[in-house]
Amino acid sequence: MRKVAESTVRRLSLYLRFLEEFEGQGIATVSSGALASRGSTTSAQVRKDLSFFGSFGKRGLGYPVPELAGRLREILGLKQRYQVGMIGAGKIGGALVQYRGFRQRGFDIVAIFDSDPAKIGRQWNGLTILDIDTLEAEFARRPIDMAVLVTPADAAQPVTDRLVQLGVKAVLNFAPVQLVVPDDVVVKTVNLALELETLSYALANR
Amino acid sequence: MRKVAESTVRRLSLYLRFLEEFEGQGIATVSSGALASRGSTTSAQVRKDLSFFGSFGKRGLGYPVPELAGRLREILGLKQRYQVGMIGAGKIGGALVQYRGFRQRGFDIVAIFDSDPAKIGRQWNGLTILDIDTLEAEFARRPIDMAVLVTPADAAQPVTDRLVQLGVKAVLNFAPVQLVVPDDVVVKTVNLALELETLSYALANR
Repeated sequence: MRKVAESTVRRLSLYLRFLEEFEGQGIATVSSGALASRGSTTSAQVRKDLSFFGSFGKRGLGYPVPELAGRLREILGLKQRYQVGMIGAGKIGGALVQYRGFRQRGFDIVAIFDSDPAKIGRQWNGLTILDIDTLEAEFARRPIDMAVLVTPADAAQPVTDRLVQLGVKAVLNFAPVQLVVPDDVVVKTVNLALELETLSYALANR
Repeated sequence: MRKVAESTVRRLSLYLRFLEEFEGQGIATVSSGALASRGSTTSAQVRKDLSFFGSFGKRGLGYPVPELAGRLREILGLKQRYQVGMIGAGKIGGALVQYRGFRQRGFDIVAIFDSDPAKIGRQWNGLTILDIDTLEAEFARRPIDMAVLVTPADAAQPVTDRLVQLGVKAVLNFAPVQLVVPDDVVVKTVNLALELETLSYALANR
């Protein structure tokens, strides 16, 4: 079960969303074709993606919805909840802290840090914005599994080094920099301008 | 020049960022190795990515920074500015409208629409939030090249159908749905919870 492409993991996440919708509608089994059409892919791809993680469903009967959903939650590491620390209390941080999608999927933002004295001490969604200087003390007090980084570009690497030192193994990075981390730490960088550039590329090269 | 993988386009965007940094520092030429180390890839990959779009640089001398940057801007469709309409004036929309990365790369948010009477008429970053019912009238008045969709899930497809009808060819979608569009329209969906799931997957399968 090594080295699954990120594109596969993303499709598994999408399949899980559809399965949960089907679950909500009381649908007991689903075909690879139904999953494929919802995920903009092919039934062959669905079968291939799922077979990689073991045997699901019976030929001609489709996949059992609750079982497959449960197995995907397990594969995606979603059977537990994660304590998430947010570094940076700017505009994007403010939107993310109120984003219900995180909590719904098991990601609880439990602490917010900033270096700006004008922001430290303010309340956001029931959390007090903490001084970034207290990062180490706060980590000693409560476990944090993941960090969401929404700092300016120049602050991103130094704070990442501190997070790595504190044992954080996963960082969702919104700062426009390529972070350098040890091999056992995963970083996912979201660059919103870059997403628009994939669109301008498509428009320019149609 | 058909069918370049999205991963290639993303790397080109990253190379352009580094080239612009080098340009700012007055560096005239850059090796594939230097571009590779900044983009977390290999020099062979850099050479392959760039050779796909023609011949750049001289063996042993590296790539000429301003020329390559200019060519990448052209390839990525960044030689022009884009008029962007934002649909939805919620928390994420509020962060995006103030996000400087968009304007820096040539994407100008020129109109914001919402259906909530409490939001319509408010000022955001110098723009008045418009009634979504006036979408067609507004498009008749001014051209809009791209849409950023930050609506609730159930509003996303109906408003996309209207945008497609109005001739929009590119949509950056933050709503947690797979949009159905004609073949000549490009959609890029950003699902922030899904980004965290690639991290939880990595933590669960290390």
